[in-house]
Amino acid sequence: MQRPFNFSAGPAAIPLEVLERAASEMTNWHNTGMSVMEMSHRGQAFMSILAKAQADLRQLLAIPDHFKVLFMQGGGIAENAIVPLNLSRGGEVDFVLSGTWSQKSLKEAGKYAHTHVAASSEATHFDHLPDPAQWQLSKSAAYVHLCSNETIHGVECHELPDLNALGSPAPLVIDFSSHVLSRPVDWSRVGLAFGGAQKNIGPAGLTLVVVREDLLGQALQVCPSAFNYELVAKNDSMFNTPPTYGIYLAGLIFEWALAQCEGHLAGIAALEQRNIHKAQLLYDVIDRSELYVNPVHVANRSRMNVPFFLRGDDGKPLLEATQPRNAAFLKAAEQSGLLQLKGHKSVGGMRASIYNAMPMQGVQALVSFLQDFEQHHA
Amino acid sequence: MQRPFNFSAGPAAIPLEVLERAASEMTNWHNTGMSVMEMSHRGQAFMSILAKAQADLRQLLAIPDHFKVLFMQGGGIAENAIVPLNLSRGGEVDFVLSGTWSQKSLKEAGKYAHTHVAASSEATHFDHLPDPAQWQLSKSAAYVHLCSNETIHGVECHELPDLNALGSPAPLVIDFSSHVLSRPVDWSRVGLAFGGAQKNIGPAGLTLVVVREDLLGQALQVCPSAFNYELVAKNDSMFNTPPTYGIYLAGLIFEWALAQCEGHLAGIAALEQRNIHKAQLLYDVIDRSELYVNPVHVANRSRMNVPFFLRGDDGKPLLEATQPRNAAFLKAAEQSGLLQLKGHKSVGGMRASIYNAMPMQGVQALVSFLQDFEQHHA
Repeated sequence: MQRPFNFSAGPAAIPLEVLERAASEMTNWHNTGMSVMEMSHRGQAFMSILAKAQADLRQLLAIPDHFKVLFMQGGGIAENAIVPLNLSRGGEVDFVLSGTWSQKSLKEAGKYAHTHVAASSEATHFDHLPDPAQWQLSKSAAYVHLCSNETIHGVECHELPDLNALGSPAPLVIDFSSHVLSRPVDWSRVGLAFGGAQKNIGPAGLTLVVVREDLLGQALQVCPSAFNYELVAKNDSMFNTPPTYGIYLAGLIFEWALAQCEGHLAGIAALEQRNIHKAQLLYDVIDRSELYVNPVHVANRSRMNVPFFLRGDDGKPLLEATQPRNAAFLKAAEQSGLLQLKGHKSVGGMRASIYNAMPMQGVQALVSFLQDFEQHHA
Repeated sequence: MQRPFNFSAGPAAIPLEVLERAASEMTNWHNTGMSVMEMSHRGQAFMSILAKAQADLRQLLAIPDHFKVLFMQGGGIAENAIVPLNLSRGGEVDFVLSGTWSQKSLKEAGKYAHTHVAASSEATHFDHLPDPAQWQLSKSAAYVHLCSNETIHGVECHELPDLNALGSPAPLVIDFSSHVLSRPVDWSRVGLAFGGAQKNIGPAGLTLVVVREDLLGQALQVCPSAFNYELVAKNDSMFNTPPTYGIYLAGLIFEWALAQCEGHLAGIAALEQRNIHKAQLLYDVIDRSELYVNPVHVANRSRMNVPFFLRGDDGKPLLEATQPRNAAFLKAAEQSGLLQLKGHKSVGGMRASIYNAMPMQGVQALVSFLQDFEQHHA
């Protein structure tokens, strides 16, 4: 039986070969007689797993030596507090609003800092990323927050802004939860990047933080020690017991990612190439159809999260999942082995998340289904 | 080949049948075509896993309806901040010090509250639990903190104090990380209980909080939303994406625990009975020997964590793991399939953690080894 294709926005699909390897090592990792779950985090076996995961991630994303890699807990939503607790110094912070996630980050940061909206596309329902040339950056911001891929609205930043060139001396903080590992990162433009693991990295409950060393050591006094970047960095992600099994799984995924090839490309370059092709195929079919519509400006469309709507007979997008055409679509998709296509409840419609673990065949199967459904139902 | 016995203090042994079931369900949970790791946390499949885990835990520990069960992240060390952020109201908090963990909790709480040491056994190297009748409780404490099992020092509270009878109107907060599920809990004496999962519940990265409803809703303004008990409770542990795979594993362990029997006893009662016998067997051999010594007062000895020292030829406890007799002991133990017996670096010596997943045969194997080693090496 063919395994179904899982378009969940996160927790999301994991490469089958990674799951199979985890299953095969579940009761006895490398002849230690233990599951990875049963290992002391301070023992030799787990320390080797952690060290390899860190080294592979550094290689994959070409993370410079003056950045620390931290494995933490709490996901992106916890980081919405943890970032300002560590970096704001209680001063001003600039926010660029391009969807639900940057909005949530703004709201939480308001507990710890003076927040300032430098730009927003809310007036047009977050259908684009505000042009960096138009951002109203503060002179004294502790940092500038940008969600570099908005999972719900499907808006991606394809070239990180050079804040210095825009007149701001502040470091850029990116929430890259939903497109980390899908493309290279220009670290020369980043001060800190954070992401929940449950899209491209591994199981929910693991959080990745990559932070420039000079930004450590300025946490507010009320920052919980377990979430103080400086303490976490000094203790090599072992200030508290880390989510050991999640780190192990992430390590398997890093190994898988390093081994990917597309023609002469390898690793992240290969994944990026594949992701460009997958997204192009899907957006092309949506744009050419009469039935489907994606509202995002072409230049800002996400390669990872493709929200789309079915139109009603009046041509208007159908929002509610319970609407008969939407319900028929979701039922037929599931019967065709295409799972978890329902859009986020806050925007409605559909969403296909096509992370690294979604193979080209999965997108091809979705595209065929979209075309068939349009022929038969519209 | 016999699987070795793993005496790690945490992350710790997990029942083999639980690991085998997790492995068998890894790529396809209940014919959904998905791993549990790949499921949206808001989908029907995962929601059913969460609901069953909660219900089974409530049954196991007989948790009354006016307590909320929260699945969180960050472990006990994060809770050292999260508890005072939620319960202290910035006022006074009483601490009972009986080992390293209560000391750590005290230190972290000092960021958010006025801490007061009501009792301490530090002067005698945490060799006992201070007698509740002697605790100097404040009149106006927001809560009283007690670590009901000190993992490093091996000190357990075998009967939770009745704070009301001791003259304090404050709720009791217990850190039950390292003996949760090993025995029943008298909820009439508890306001809040918290614990990292990685001893008796499941993989590291999951944190259990059981909190009386009337204690919700008083968090400090600086409490991160992801760690605000009221928000977590209102959202049924889904305010942020929960550690889904950890919850699944915990659910398998709750099922396993419910199915345990000893004579006419079942569930927690059976586990408690077995744990009493396991601990008795081990302490008896230690107490009868010339070579081994456990320094804890008999009435406060932990059923879960049994620290012990080998004596040198002068009769004094040998602390350093590198000391030849200790090194020989650890090497011979490992060769006999008895793993992770080294004591915590802060106290030295040895420690056998005999959580629920350690079968009686494992303790019998350890006891035989202790006797053999004493005969041949002392």
